[in-house]
Amino acid sequence: MKTFDEALSYLVSQAKKTRQTETVAIAEAMGRVLAEPVVSSVMVPPHDNSEMDGYAIDRMDLTHEDTFRVSQRIPAGATPEPLEVGTVARIFTGAPIPKGANAVIMQEETEMVGDKVRITAKSTRPGQSIRKTGEDIEAGTAILEKGHRLRSQDLGLIASIGIDEVTVYRPLKIATFTTGDELLEPGETPQPGKIFNANRYVLAGALPKLGFELIDLGHVKDTLEETIDVMKQAAELADVVMTTGGVSVGEEDHIKPAIESLGSLEMWKVKMKPGKPLAFGQIQGTPFIGLPGNPVSAFATFNLFARPYLMQMQGVKNICITPIWLEADFDWPNANFRREFARARITVPEGEQKTVAQVYPKQGSGVLTSTVWAEGFVVIPEDQTVSKGDRVKFYPFAEMV
Amino acid sequence: MKTFDEALSYLVSQAKKTRQTETVAIAEAMGRVLAEPVVSSVMVPPHDNSEMDGYAIDRMDLTHEDTFRVSQRIPAGATPEPLEVGTVARIFTGAPIPKGANAVIMQEETEMVGDKVRITAKSTRPGQSIRKTGEDIEAGTAILEKGHRLRSQDLGLIASIGIDEVTVYRPLKIATFTTGDELLEPGETPQPGKIFNANRYVLAGALPKLGFELIDLGHVKDTLEETIDVMKQAAELADVVMTTGGVSVGEEDHIKPAIESLGSLEMWKVKMKPGKPLAFGQIQGTPFIGLPGNPVSAFATFNLFARPYLMQMQGVKNICITPIWLEADFDWPNANFRREFARARITVPEGEQKTVAQVYPKQGSGVLTSTVWAEGFVVIPEDQTVSKGDRVKFYPFAEMV
Repeated sequence: MKTFDEALSYLVSQAKKTRQTETVAIAEAMGRVLAEPVVSSVMVPPHDNSEMDGYAIDRMDLTHEDTFRVSQRIPAGATPEPLEVGTVARIFTGAPIPKGANAVIMQEETEMVGDKVRITAKSTRPGQSIRKTGEDIEAGTAILEKGHRLRSQDLGLIASIGIDEVTVYRPLKIATFTTGDELLEPGETPQPGKIFNANRYVLAGALPKLGFELIDLGHVKDTLEETIDVMKQAAELADVVMTTGGVSVGEEDHIKPAIESLGSLEMWKVKMKPGKPLAFGQIQGTPFIGLPGNPVSAFATFNLFARPYLMQMQGVKNICITPIWLEADFDWPNANFRREFARARITVPEGEQKTVAQVYPKQGSGVLTSTVWAEGFVVIPEDQTVSKGDRVKFYPFAEMV
Repeated sequence: MKTFDEALSYLVSQAKKTRQTETVAIAEAMGRVLAEPVVSSVMVPPHDNSEMDGYAIDRMDLTHEDTFRVSQRIPAGATPEPLEVGTVARIFTGAPIPKGANAVIMQEETEMVGDKVRITAKSTRPGQSIRKTGEDIEAGTAILEKGHRLRSQDLGLIASIGIDEVTVYRPLKIATFTTGDELLEPGETPQPGKIFNANRYVLAGALPKLGFELIDLGHVKDTLEETIDVMKQAAELADVVMTTGGVSVGEEDHIKPAIESLGSLEMWKVKMKPGKPLAFGQIQGTPFIGLPGNPVSAFATFNLFARPYLMQMQGVKNICITPIWLEADFDWPNANFRREFARARITVPEGEQKTVAQVYPKQGSGVLTSTVWAEGFVVIPEDQTVSKGDRVKFYPFAEMV
């Protein structure tokens, strides 16, 4: 048996980073992974400009006067004249600061006196309400690293330096299929001895959300021939083949002989719960990941193993999720030699400055409702119990999928 | 000035929940919001079945014997005969338990003795390795509530009860445009006195990710006529109109007079930083949200105000994000009468069982790099300072957009 950490670090070490890149418009780049750093050729802001609507002034003039003539008007986008000595310039948010001005007085701290402006501000400081050239970004700086997965604010930052397209990795194509003659597709008539296919839809939701291209080959009959045929097809079409079910040691599983006839396979029992059986190999050179058939195990191993493996292959630099240490609001009296990933919710007790984790009462691995109730996993370390008030690590689902 | 809480609760109270629904296949339902609860008409699992590959047995037989003939073989999907007295049945994961059996012995705790099976398990318990009928879901239960936003595990749960489509709300259409003559589009040649449009791309990334349909009307010239024309078009096409920029008190802003000529507008100064100016109104009956032009303020107000408003309108039941209380790894010596949303990262100090928050050194509101560096907002309450070691609330970006 492999420990969780051994299995994960081995798996990630085997992920070959994709090399195929493409150039896309930034408006289409959400969730994509940078294949090159984004380097700024400009200063942001490109010139000193006003943070406010107000009046640009030379602070020296305030030492002997408080009422001034307005000598020019500078809207955003204008190119101002130097500030006439002893006057102020009407200025708007984002507009360039005229030469000779060294502060902006917000209009709420002024009043009109005839056609002049009186400054009512009690005090001023040099550079007040002025955004300096390059304050946000110096020219020549890499604003985003290769391997960064783009969020909405990143797109905004790239746009702010005038760049309209980025070089990103082509999304991985992931071929999936499910096996097991006991499975019915939702919408079909229930039959005795059969259960509905849940894993197919977990993957159909999760893989595109993570930015991958899903090739769903459907449900495959439990025969060796069919399994081999679909395996070959999957390996040709996709960058990674992923299945659920069919990787236990049972005789009825055809995944193992199918892959062994086309490539190679390692079967792991990982010291984790849920999610013990996990298979990893290759089909004619295409990586293969076999998740367990049990839906909770499939969900857990997908998030905890497949996700980091795929992210590494997709070129993501930081595949780790920072754990959030919280207080346990539960007792976990039975230690297990396997690391447990309990389905948990977080809550803030009324009037307290702490966030606590609660676990789903039925952690039986068949119960998919636990993952629906939950907001993340709480880790119960190997051979440990947990008492209310102990500190535990929480991994939010929102950081995964 | 409105407090943050006043502004948010007023805004959300004004959100009229959409009524338009549609029916979609579950494989297409990721991120959609349920317009009806999902009720199960079946038991899950539909029959007692095996959690393992192994042997189904009547535990009574173990009291006088440990080696048994294998009287039948039950693959997943089969319909078994009742268990012959004094024998065991070979059984596979997911297969129905035969009548007369009350435990499954995993095959790792057995060995073959000729054509018989010896049970090597040290102890057994009633129901061992058996998933009971309805253990996951009782028939008639609502497994997901109206207003739930669907995640991958939810799709799996819905599939597991045989349902292949769901009734969800039609995604809101959000029309956006940006204003300000100082703005250039990325890809254009830099010009003195001009800056690149960042907000358009933040919204182009964020709105589709949240599940909304984006109608991007581009950048609008700073004239009253153009602003009115685009406003009318936006109000006809969309469920909500959202702009950035043009909502300050400055004379150069045409949003205010444009909306006042077509509907109504409230201008708020919210006691928050970044993000003071915020506008809310209606254009010929279509709700309007005006975010600030400053990119950090736009990002903050989008996530903290527009997101919950839109989610409420989209029919989401739980629009609140549970704050995570962490330890501050920074000092914030200057109290502000406005609530500050500091851009923060989280980290676990080497060897410690706690997660701490660090803030970006330059919290100046023009600096979009702070939001790119950060993983979420830390709240600095009104009129308070923070010292290292104090507890602060953290809101992860991953829970927002």
